[in-house]
Amino acid sequence: MKEISIQDLSEMGRVQRLNLINSCTGYKSANLIATQSLDGINNVAIFSSVTHLGSDPALIGLIVRPTTVPRDTYKNIKETGYFTVNHVTENMIADAHHTSANYESNISEFDKTNLQEEYKENIKIPFTKGSPVQLYCKYVSEYYIKENDTIHVIASIEKLYYNEELANEDGWLQIDKGNVVALNGLDAYCLPKLIDRFQYARKDKPTESFPK
Amino acid sequence: MKEISIQDLSEMGRVQRLNLINSCTGYKSANLIATQSLDGINNVAIFSSVTHLGSDPALIGLIVRPTTVPRDTYKNIKETGYFTVNHVTENMIADAHHTSANYESNISEFDKTNLQEEYKENIKIPFTKGSPVQLYCKYVSEYYIKENDTIHVIASIEKLYYNEELANEDGWLQIDKGNVVALNGLDAYCLPKLIDRFQYARKDKPTESFPK
Repeated sequence: MKEISIQDLSEMGRVQRLNLINSCTGYKSANLIATQSLDGINNVAIFSSVTHLGSDPALIGLIVRPTTVPRDTYKNIKETGYFTVNHVTENMIADAHHTSANYESNISEFDKTNLQEEYKENIKIPFTKGSPVQLYCKYVSEYYIKENDTIHVIASIEKLYYNEELANEDGWLQIDKGNVVALNGLDAYCLPKLIDRFQYARKDKPTESFPK
Repeated sequence: MKEISIQDLSEMGRVQRLNLINSCTGYKSANLIATQSLDGINNVAIFSSVTHLGSDPALIGLIVRPTTVPRDTYKNIKETGYFTVNHVTENMIADAHHTSANYESNISEFDKTNLQEEYKENIKIPFTKGSPVQLYCKYVSEYYIKENDTIHVIASIEKLYYNEELANEDGWLQIDKGNVVALNGLDAYCLPKLIDRFQYARKDKPTESFPK
């Protein structure tokens, strides 16, 4: 095993460290966050920091760095209070990645990619067409993380849309059925396939699979 | 598409909601967090909430709920200041899942599974043998998330170990080469494979793959 100390990290080049540290915590979710500015310009941006926070109430978290791209997302969330989270599928990866390019605020990434807006009844903010899981989220609060000048945004899930082919009768969404991808680091897109699903773990009992 | 409102969620059974909301944000990292109590008892527990926070300084975050399992992990981190993060591989999934069983604090999950401790020079806390990426982390601070009574623990990466077969010359670790798994929801383990890695996105230029 190669060993890297905190001293080695501090002496490493910026890009090398960025690649290493972004890939060392494991797979990350790949989501397109869509927002709308107050003057009606849509924005869509790839995020790998959307995480589950709790199910009752249904809350998610995401990390934003206000001083760097994609800053429009955070600005729009703060101004309108809402955003959508859309799963990235295998056939969207090149377009999803392109949303990380540094476009001006008056340009919609929907106009610069093959990603298409999808609108739902009574919701102004667009979703991404073809995403098999889509969340309509409301800004709840934020925590400033002083250690590295980032913001942990907390949001509630107000509405949830999913392709019924993914749904299990106990509520679980089997997302590999929708060809949903995961991120390995900043820029590598991976396609996961289910190995096994296990029942609730009980002490001194062997791990058991769910009946297929 | 099936539509679920916040009202539907509040009326849903607890397990149904737990399964749905845990699987609706996308894939999650699968990590074994190992800790040691002040009286020397090891603990290892599966976590899906370890996330990248920043690369300079190298920081990670994880979400803990102090009132539920795995509470020993949080207690040990607070008492000793350190923990290790170990990637879960395909052949470890049944044992990794079993660490979520509710064992008493005086029992080490290493004794109840085939997971094996691995010790490194000058580090008291164990790692998990066979994990192709292992992080030695130091508690830095925490943020109490009042919206759902959870704690966002912030930690620095003090040392990083990886299997050199995963490493790319620009620092990126290609973790599918180590058969690292991802989680879909609470209990479903998935094996991702790389589709493509893309170069830095530039406006009005097509997405380009990294040279293979």
